[in-house]
Amino acid sequence: MRMVDIIHKKRMGEALTEDEIRFVVNGTTDGSIPDYQLTALCMAIVFQSMNDEETALLTRYMAESGDQIDLSEFGDLSVDKHSTGGVGDKTTLILAPLVAACGGIVAKMSGRGLGHTGGTIDKLESIPGFQTKETIGMFLKQSREVGVTVVGQTKELAPADRRLYVLRDVTATVEAIPLIVSSIMSKKLAAGAHSIVLDVTVGSGAFMKTVEEATVLAEKMVTIGRACGRNMSALITNMDEPLGHAVGNALVVQEAIGVLKGEVQGDLKEVCLALAGEMLSLCLKIPPEKGRAMAEETLESGAAYKKFKEWITAQGGDVRFAEDPSLFPEAAFSRVIRSPKSGYIEKMNAERIGNVAGQLGAGRRQKGDDIDFAAGIYLYAKTGDHVKKGEPLAKLFTEHEESLDDAEAAYLDALSWSRKRPEPEPIVYKIIH
Amino acid sequence: MRMVDIIHKKRMGEALTEDEIRFVVNGTTDGSIPDYQLTALCMAIVFQSMNDEETALLTRYMAESGDQIDLSEFGDLSVDKHSTGGVGDKTTLILAPLVAACGGIVAKMSGRGLGHTGGTIDKLESIPGFQTKETIGMFLKQSREVGVTVVGQTKELAPADRRLYVLRDVTATVEAIPLIVSSIMSKKLAAGAHSIVLDVTVGSGAFMKTVEEATVLAEKMVTIGRACGRNMSALITNMDEPLGHAVGNALVVQEAIGVLKGEVQGDLKEVCLALAGEMLSLCLKIPPEKGRAMAEETLESGAAYKKFKEWITAQGGDVRFAEDPSLFPEAAFSRVIRSPKSGYIEKMNAERIGNVAGQLGAGRRQKGDDIDFAAGIYLYAKTGDHVKKGEPLAKLFTEHEESLDDAEAAYLDALSWSRKRPEPEPIVYKIIH
Repeated sequence: MRMVDIIHKKRMGEALTEDEIRFVVNGTTDGSIPDYQLTALCMAIVFQSMNDEETALLTRYMAESGDQIDLSEFGDLSVDKHSTGGVGDKTTLILAPLVAACGGIVAKMSGRGLGHTGGTIDKLESIPGFQTKETIGMFLKQSREVGVTVVGQTKELAPADRRLYVLRDVTATVEAIPLIVSSIMSKKLAAGAHSIVLDVTVGSGAFMKTVEEATVLAEKMVTIGRACGRNMSALITNMDEPLGHAVGNALVVQEAIGVLKGEVQGDLKEVCLALAGEMLSLCLKIPPEKGRAMAEETLESGAAYKKFKEWITAQGGDVRFAEDPSLFPEAAFSRVIRSPKSGYIEKMNAERIGNVAGQLGAGRRQKGDDIDFAAGIYLYAKTGDHVKKGEPLAKLFTEHEESLDDAEAAYLDALSWSRKRPEPEPIVYKIIH
Repeated sequence: MRMVDIIHKKRMGEALTEDEIRFVVNGTTDGSIPDYQLTALCMAIVFQSMNDEETALLTRYMAESGDQIDLSEFGDLSVDKHSTGGVGDKTTLILAPLVAACGGIVAKMSGRGLGHTGGTIDKLESIPGFQTKETIGMFLKQSREVGVTVVGQTKELAPADRRLYVLRDVTATVEAIPLIVSSIMSKKLAAGAHSIVLDVTVGSGAFMKTVEEATVLAEKMVTIGRACGRNMSALITNMDEPLGHAVGNALVVQEAIGVLKGEVQGDLKEVCLALAGEMLSLCLKIPPEKGRAMAEETLESGAAYKKFKEWITAQGGDVRFAEDPSLFPEAAFSRVIRSPKSGYIEKMNAERIGNVAGQLGAGRRQKGDDIDFAAGIYLYAKTGDHVKKGEPLAKLFTEHEESLDDAEAAYLDALSWSRKRPEPEPIVYKIIH
């Protein structure tokens, strides 16, 4: 079999066979297919796409290209959640203990942040002592005993995807549905959960800009996940403004603790309940409304918060930070941004606000960069709120005082204003069962 | 400027600017753009194409990426010919001295053969002593004194094209009109001739399979060449069966000498006269019919044959071989293929016959392979001929006796038969002035 013939076939719009897809994935993993042939194939796929069968095969062989976590001992109880990315997203910090407190098993691998979106692992590491590297034995033991474990993704999880992703990023071949689907789903399959809920975000802070695009992607991922034997559902959620009020690692953890303690309401809690409802529906085999009600009760009873502390303790984190968030060190410098005018906030560009947090030190520009846990933004006013001139809009936190001026200007640039109250947008657009 | 943005732009179907095209060609030449980005761009061009302005810019910058031969001292008299490839093609061996004998200057760089088509340089090297490497000073001096020089293409001629071509070959991105045009024309521009005649071949032995496709390619090359200030015309010629009767290096030289001596008639001579007519029309500024008549006279008078001997001598070749082709060493083994049936030859697959010659040792599978000058095929019967069972169809020549059985079977496989005489096809389909 020759790679050039496979590229030619796809270029002509034909479907690849199982043997051909296996050949491509094996050659991607072992390095026998050079970069320049892989990128030509990716570009051909951008134009000619792949059918569901090809996409499922590509996903499955990429999942099998490295380590595969065996969670079969937990059966359907093992449940995972994947978000396609956002700004101020801290749902995993809430959902993991919440679903575990309801009886699900959340044994999860998460990524680090890059660009304008934050990573769960970075957020968790802002809790002193919290360990994100565990042996597979410890990972399974903790999942059995506590019901929740979140560790960093190993390099050996879907290595074929890792290689392809880096190449796609520099060859303008990221935006092809079969490639996006197989990249996300191969890692989820390799991570082992039997039930998977996808949070496909839409809007200025998300990769997908319209509900229609997001729906196509979500439906395809659900189809492929089911073809590979997993219980699947997907939510299409609003990421047109940051989720909740906090952006930045330690700030986000504090807000998540607020939700778990029952002190924080609003869009963040709403999204968490919708996601938890689906997760519990899949793993406990109950209707989603029942799952949602169970999640709500578990938050209110304090059981979710208790599970959170148990989890943090199990992974070596200092639980006093959960009990008293004021222990989190504050950033050396801060500034309150005051409103330059009176009016309604009509829109907040979430990607740009994510980038402001990055400027302040909360994000990475390149892999391996250090991040400041205390850096970030607290949003006092969000889309639809009315603000008077001089009232506080947000507070910036940083270790680099010189970054504040640019950050304030960029933050204000990310907002648009209106005289009349904008129509509120739904926080959950759609659920795909 | 970032290559990923240029790839994205082309992927979206937009035209690239002059700066962007210069950036791509410079980065191709100096190696600063990696292979994997170049192949992604080539695949995007396969789908989104390039307009005439982009193609002309790409061609010009590729021509300027390395050495450029300065033939301006010859003005319009310097004339070049390029064939898009074929089997049994020996027109350069005839045209170069023929056109020079009529007053044109043929100062030419040719390539080596790869795959099923032969290269002019390989053919010339079958004449003992013939030198195909000359300094640029010698190249110009001989062109001035003899009017004809043919040397091998240097590595420094359009190096950007050289790099791209190798990558396109292994990524199924050869077949894109702007890439084909810029690859051929950049080398022709760099080689310096002011007048260029293109021989765009069509049929089973050619890259183009239909007259329509060939016409599109030819018209595009004529347009681009003129945009770059050259006198251009193109012929669309028939390459559905091998041209003439000989395939293989020394055999081809002997047939060419036959034409120059006035001993060989038929399709080969016909194509040469049509091409010579166009070449002389461009370089001497006379009507093509006049050019053709002049070429015919020059063949008949023996002046072309005389010029051939002068040329061979100037490049160090042993001229006795021109005078007595029986001096060419015969291959160690030969076999006459006899017809298995009676009937008309309806078609001869030229590519497959080219491959048979390769099997016998006349071609290269990989760059750098040695070739046997004496290996090849002599065709007794061609398309449209009636043959009786047992009559000779062709004679195979090789240094490897063991290759004869397979070669005979493959040769017979390349023929199709008919009870009635097939309609004769034209040898020149079209001329684009």
